[in-house]
Amino acid sequence: MKIGFIGVGLMGGPMAHNLLKAGYELKVFDLVPALLKPLIQDGAIAVDNARLAIEGVDCLITMLPASEHVLKLYLEEEALLDHIDPKTLVIDCSTIAPDVTKTVADAAAKQGITMLDAPVSGGTKGAQDGTLTFIVGGSATGFEAAQPILSAMGKNILHAGDHGAGQMAKICNNMLLAIHMAGTAEAIQLGVNNGLDPKVLSDIMVQSSGRNWSLELYNPYPGVMETAPASKAYQGGFKVNLMVKDLGLSQQAALLSHSSTPLGALARNLFNLHAAQGSEQLDFSSIQRFYKPK
Amino acid sequence: MKIGFIGVGLMGGPMAHNLLKAGYELKVFDLVPALLKPLIQDGAIAVDNARLAIEGVDCLITMLPASEHVLKLYLEEEALLDHIDPKTLVIDCSTIAPDVTKTVADAAAKQGITMLDAPVSGGTKGAQDGTLTFIVGGSATGFEAAQPILSAMGKNILHAGDHGAGQMAKICNNMLLAIHMAGTAEAIQLGVNNGLDPKVLSDIMVQSSGRNWSLELYNPYPGVMETAPASKAYQGGFKVNLMVKDLGLSQQAALLSHSSTPLGALARNLFNLHAAQGSEQLDFSSIQRFYKPK
Amino acid sequence: MKIGFIGVGLMGGPMAHNLLKAGYELKVFDLVPALLKPLIQDGAIAVDNARLAIEGVDCLITMLPASEHVLKLYLEEEALLDHIDPKTLVIDCSTIAPDVTKTVADAAAKQGITMLDAPVSGGTKGAQDGTLTFIVGGSATGFEAAQPILSAMGKNILHAGDHGAGQMAKICNNMLLAIHMAGTAEAIQLGVNNGLDPKVLSDIMVQSSGRNWSLELYNPYPGVMETAPASKAYQGGFKVNLMVKDLGLSQQAALLSHSSTPLGALARNLFNLHAAQGSEQLDFSSIQRFYKPK
Amino acid sequence: MKIGFIGVGLMGGPMAHNLLKAGYELKVFDLVPALLKPLIQDGAIAVDNARLAIEGVDCLITMLPASEHVLKLYLEEEALLDHIDPKTLVIDCSTIAPDVTKTVADAAAKQGITMLDAPVSGGTKGAQDGTLTFIVGGSATGFEAAQPILSAMGKNILHAGDHGAGQMAKICNNMLLAIHMAGTAEAIQLGVNNGLDPKVLSDIMVQSSGRNWSLELYNPYPGVMETAPASKAYQGGFKVNLMVKDLGLSQQAALLSHSSTPLGALARNLFNLHAAQGSEQLDFSSIQRFYKPK
Repeated sequence: MKIGFIGVGLMGGPMAHNLLKAGYELKVFDLVPALLKPLIQDGAIAVDNARLAIEGVDCLITMLPASEHVLKLYLEEEALLDHIDPKTLVIDCSTIAPDVTKTVADAAAKQGITMLDAPVSGGTKGAQDGTLTFIVGGSATGFEAAQPILSAMGKNILHAGDHGAGQMAKICNNMLLAIHMAGTAEAIQLGVNNGLDPKVLSDIMVQSSGRNWSLELYNPYPGVMETAPASKAYQGGFKVNLMVKDLGLSQQAALLSHSSTPLGALARNLFNLHAAQGSEQLDFSSIQRFYKPK
Repeated sequence: MKIGFIGVGLMGGPMAHNLLKAGYELKVFDLVPALLKPLIQDGAIAVDNARLAIEGVDCLITMLPASEHVLKLYLEEEALLDHIDPKTLVIDCSTIAPDVTKTVADAAAKQGITMLDAPVSGGTKGAQDGTLTFIVGGSATGFEAAQPILSAMGKNILHAGDHGAGQMAKICNNMLLAIHMAGTAEAIQLGVNNGLDPKVLSDIMVQSSGRNWSLELYNPYPGVMETAPASKAYQGGFKVNLMVKDLGLSQQAALLSHSSTPLGALARNLFNLHAAQGSEQLDFSSIQRFYKPK
Repeated sequence: MKIGFIGVGLMGGPMAHNLLKAGYELKVFDLVPALLKPLIQDGAIAVDNARLAIEGVDCLITMLPASEHVLKLYLEEEALLDHIDPKTLVIDCSTIAPDVTKTVADAAAKQGITMLDAPVSGGTKGAQDGTLTFIVGGSATGFEAAQPILSAMGKNILHAGDHGAGQMAKICNNMLLAIHMAGTAEAIQLGVNNGLDPKVLSDIMVQSSGRNWSLELYNPYPGVMETAPASKAYQGGFKVNLMVKDLGLSQQAALLSHSSTPLGALARNLFNLHAAQGSEQLDFSSIQRFYKPK
Repeated sequence: MKIGFIGVGLMGGPMAHNLLKAGYELKVFDLVPALLKPLIQDGAIAVDNARLAIEGVDCLITMLPASEHVLKLYLEEEALLDHIDPKTLVIDCSTIAPDVTKTVADAAAKQGITMLDAPVSGGTKGAQDGTLTFIVGGSATGFEAAQPILSAMGKNILHAGDHGAGQMAKICNNMLLAIHMAGTAEAIQLGVNNGLDPKVLSDIMVQSSGRNWSLELYNPYPGVMETAPASKAYQGGFKVNLMVKDLGLSQQAALLSHSSTPLGALARNLFNLHAAQGSEQLDFSSIQRFYKPK
């Protein structure tokens, strides 16, 4: 089975490696040619432009930074949808606005092309280890066809619903993640400011109703959890600017659907204020610092 | 071993029952005499005032509604601390302001009395089933002495630190709980408003980084979790007005300690607005309704 | 001087009347033909489609509900920009997203057409009385050319800067308005809940540093100001759903420009929650009700 | 007429000077003796303790930092109320919690003493120039008796209602001030981030419905208003830590009265976060910096 893969940066690169490892033939393209080299060494065929990446493949996977890149590639500048063979399964793994996803998927459907949105969570480490979670939107048959391919790159392959549902579910998840991460940081700091030990307090809350993913697996207070980014000066992990991007997508979706997300909106602003203080490149659990009295 | 128990309402009543069941002798008192009857039938000795409840007991347990009742009983009107035998272990299970707890415990220490704050979580069901969590503040020896007694009423007995630390840890926990409950409701409603199925979305987030206690064990969206209050018209459970009270305690502690808790402050206001719309007596997961477009 | 006028609803209708009154010749169009009748009686020429409205006019004014209508009219379905004589001064009075305004104005510039964004404030009453405020974006020469025309419909004609600056300034203003209106409602309710008289408190704050437009000219508490919507069951005035729309535009602009607007974001959510409780058609000062204990 | 004056710091000092200037005889006391010297030079009699300051005076004025100092002076350590001649008019100008004010005023009433709460606004400059605003709580006869005295120190003497109403009205006013100051900073920064000139935008909003005291008299953006603290590196004016204190009082009052103040609560947290970043001693309009991208 032949796969075209466009966008092989920090996330796409290791994902493509895992596909090669699983035995797939790969045609790869990226606007930054240097990114293609390690994949060529592993057996991928590098091509010179996006159109060449779709020739003769059974499946196209794209992993791009933002909505505008996806629009340009599929509909505008490159207009790939006008050139893709309808038998090709198209999977966009970018995290973008659900309404953009729907626009592109609708255009694909008009050409008879099966398209899925399959944004991931798990970060660069998950991409390298092949343990990503894919949250997939699109038809049931498309989802079924994509499963073996996605399984070569990830551990959990979840079907959220129709076109755009993958994006939407990921956005909802990450908004909730941001809320409980910042909430966890607030609760621990409140305890510390009142004389509690952050580790003892964390242990108590993990055994109580305050329990959440951030508290249990990703404690934001330095020293509580040895392996967490918090104990490594917030290096690595999921960067603040990426969380700000995802929170922005959640707020855009809230505006379009007339939804109220007061906590989500506040979380977006807190992370944005934190980013503006020079923390863009730190792990997002560094929001703990935002609460810390200087 | 003889125990005095003051305050045998919705929580204190079943807690006292469990002590009787475990073989403790009980002297019970409540301002509402009718509450004493079922305990008398189970073998407790009812007394006519608070002072009689402390005579000849090895341990005194109190379970009162709010800070002012604790102040009145121990320091002001009843001034129990002036009459308690210093060998008596005093355990206050009320959820009150940590600074009030410290004031009372300091006064107790001056009299040579060992006092613990041991607020609970687990609600009336936990009280009945003897599965409460006790979050305890006070000395290590006091904590050790209290363990067998508390174990007759609860499952998890956690030591948070010195006087007031039990209250403080509970307050931090419940603030975090309110944040992820409201955050979960927001995330699900945002998904639903954008065409997602609440159950599918919940399943995906439980398997992802959005996971938290509210989402996993207490889903606020009706129909997602059969046994949750949300699927029983938000009857039973932990009432909105009690959550508002605990969030108020967290904000009071934040003000006194110059802490920033923007999400906690907003959560307090959201639950207070929700309560003011006539939802005081509903389970706190009914915050879902607050987000629902009418 | 001949003017084409497209969109003669609640706002556009009285604005067109005032132009007729000032002696301008008018060609009018609206998708709802019934709206054209009263203007025909006053001497306007009604035309059957948008293209006819631009034939032989010196100036085109449009007053449309939202971004998508402006895009459709100028660039997409009707593509008016392809047909407008470059000598025509084009003034869009709609309140829409600044980035959409810029897209349209840039396209106009490519055709050599001078275009202005000139969103208004003052509501239907201002439109009828000819006392609107116009906040104008575009070139200085365009602004100068537009002044006599806009003066026939309004009292204050303000130049905010280049293309889109009119929209942007209006959005900033209305976000600030929403914040101090809701803030005023909070402050008064806090006082009332603590025994203060709303009128006495309002008088004190108007003479102090709490003073703001909402408090002084548009008091949201019923009975304080006889002529305010608050004293007329919140009928008339500027509707909640329009404020929600403008707050949405402010949040969209904040997302695009990576700006932090925590109070603006919260205000948008408070008004949106208020709207969802069935208050969409009330005056926006009805946010007071949102804070009132039931 | 003889006046006792306790607390002659940054605010109380110049206030006492103005009383001397107006011809009143003054007995002054402060825990920091050095503060008494300049007043002695102006003709005041310095005394060695608080009790001496109330001997033989017609009126007692106190200006203390916080609730606990007022409690100590009148009810606890010094217990002045047990020693004050009932004919003495007592005026507390401190800004403290309204419930503490009521406790003290109730105790005064039991002794037959007329007491007023008369917190001020106007800052140290207003204190020096004698242009303070006094917001007074207490009986109408007390208010009348106090007017000539307060007029020697201030320009606006406003009667808010019964005991505690002065505090309450000031708290409401300052909460609203904080909201529109931070809101103004957000709106201007949003405009600037989108290419608007801060002065042009401010001028437009002052002429529109965004108008408020902060925007008009105290513009927070550097350079817009030459005389504002913003144009003097935020030196002088009303310090961030004092605003944080007043916002704390508003939130305490909101908790006690079960009021919802989501914007007020968020404003308190924003100013507290800003203070924690090292801005405690800057003028409160420096909240503009909090929003500025670094």
